Amino acid sequence: MTERLLRYIEEKKRLVDERLNRLVPPENTPPESIHRAIRYALFPGGKRIRPILCIAAAEITGGSAEDALAAACAIELIHTYSLIHDDLPCMDDDDFRRGRPTVHRVFGEAIAVLAGDGLLSLAFEVLTDANNYPDPSLPRILTVANEIAVASGTRGMVGGQVADIEAEQKREHSLKEVKFIHMNKTAKMITVSLRAGAILAGASHREIERLSLYGERLGLAFQITDDILGEIGDEKKLGKPVKRDREKNKATYPAVVGIEESRKEARKLIEEAKQALDIFEEEKCWMLKELADYVLERER
Amino acid sequence: MTERLLRYIEEKKRLVDERLNRLVPPENTPPESIHRAIRYALFPGGKRIRPILCIAAAEITGGSAEDALAAACAIELIHTYSLIHDDLPCMDDDDFRRGRPTVHRVFGEAIAVLAGDGLLSLAFEVLTDANNYPDPSLPRILTVANEIAVASGTRGMVGGQVADIEAEQKREHSLKEVKFIHMNKTAKMITVSLRAGAILAGASHREIERLSLYGERLGLAFQITDDILGEIGDEKKLGKPVKRDREKNKATYPAVVGIEESRKEARKLIEEAKQALDIFEEEKCWMLKELADYVLERER
Repeated sequence: MTERLLRYIEEKKRLVDERLNRLVPPENTPPESIHRAIRYALFPGGKRIRPILCIAAAEITGGSAEDALAAACAIELIHTYSLIHDDLPCMDDDDFRRGRPTVHRVFGEAIAVLAGDGLLSLAFEVLTDANNYPDPSLPRILTVANEIAVASGTRGMVGGQVADIEAEQKREHSLKEVKFIHMNKTAKMITVSLRAGAILAGASHREIERLSLYGERLGLAFQITDDILGEIGDEKKLGKPVKRDREKNKATYPAVVGIEESRKEARKLIEEAKQALDIFEEEKCWMLKELADYVLERER
Repeated sequence: MTERLLRYIEEKKRLVDERLNRLVPPENTPPESIHRAIRYALFPGGKRIRPILCIAAAEITGGSAEDALAAACAIELIHTYSLIHDDLPCMDDDDFRRGRPTVHRVFGEAIAVLAGDGLLSLAFEVLTDANNYPDPSLPRILTVANEIAVASGTRGMVGGQVADIEAEQKREHSLKEVKFIHMNKTAKMITVSLRAGAILAGASHREIERLSLYGERLGLAFQITDDILGEIGDEKKLGKPVKRDREKNKATYPAVVGIEESRKEARKLIEEAKQALDIFEEEKCWMLKELADYVLERER
């Protein structure tokens, strides 16, 4: 990762974390257990890739980080809820995430389910409050909230998770199946992160479409590298055990086409992602290009 | 129940069911399992009390059923998600609801969690799509979506469910605790049902406040009678076993103050609910008054 990308990410991550901290009820709000669980899941948090993409899309298309910040935080709240529910014993049954015990291991299954539920409602509370936007345009806010609802639902992220879970029971996996999972479980929320930032910044239809294409390709590549790291990554860097996908008979890219072919596909997708940005000036979109390159080299 | 109330309920229930059927993806939408589970939970469904209250509030304040229908359906989607999650083994661990096996008994726990998640996203998808309103006012739509997000979250319905679950572990329950549970778990979503219908119909601040007061009192009374039926109701009529609350050491009204005192409190709340309607003409608000009376006499 280049020095300037690292600085860009650190700067936006701080903005997101500060705003998240203000948007989430304090730990002493009754019932305290659920607010403690929500904060445990949210902080210190992960890479904050989705909110950073949301903010970058706004900045590239003439808006500010502030324009996109509510949507960026809402998307991170939804991502966090999805991780809590994915880790549940009835789903992936994972005990560790980011080097710490998962929410249900610390707070119990009931609170883990409810913390996820509460985060999803909170995301839409944040999205639909005009006070969270510096210069609120109600049509844009409604469009963004609606697109995020669609991307997170049964024809998006939740649908992808269903296919992911159900694939474990199958003897063989097809590439078509893996692509359905990646597109729905990962790429649609990453795509909507970029769309949300661009829409809130008042981007043109053409700009929004290009950023969507970038997001889709990046999202697919991101999930392929996730699959690869799940197979041959460093447990210490990842903060969770590897080879779990194989144990659980997950439908992953490496399982279907092998590690080398998966790397090739990820490289191709990243090239396409960067090409989609060719309508933007280099000094505007450099961070999206460098982020795309980073997806290929990441170790966690 | 009077003949005219029965007709009113049947008519609105049909409207709600027809619209829900159009809003929910068909069963053959991939992944099919989740859409089958969602439809299993939604249809034929229960009393549809919340959407009917939402529609009634719109009609009483000068609007039409159509004005309130999207919000009414969204609230029923959220209510349905909450029932699926409440029934999970890690929560109330219930095998039957409305005379049928619960969603996780039929589709498994993972699909039950995800069906609930998908329903919550779908509710906000419906709420934030201006095409779902005959005469869309974006400020009203945003306000309604925001209030529903708050009422369904950790300072509302989810918070009430947390307190409900956690109360099972306590040796003794206080009236204050039971009131917190009832207010958050039940009354806030019932109150927002009325507020949503009134706001979408363009009601005055005074009208909205009176309907809120009605909703809060009705919601509390509704939960008390629910507790009473859980204690001494008819299993056949309820479609689920009774005495489960006691077995699970639930914090209920009858457990804390006894059946007779609970009945008295419910009657008092219903009187207050009806009094809150005294600013409306009798020919407008009769259905809310009769619905309040029905809450006292209901057997399921």
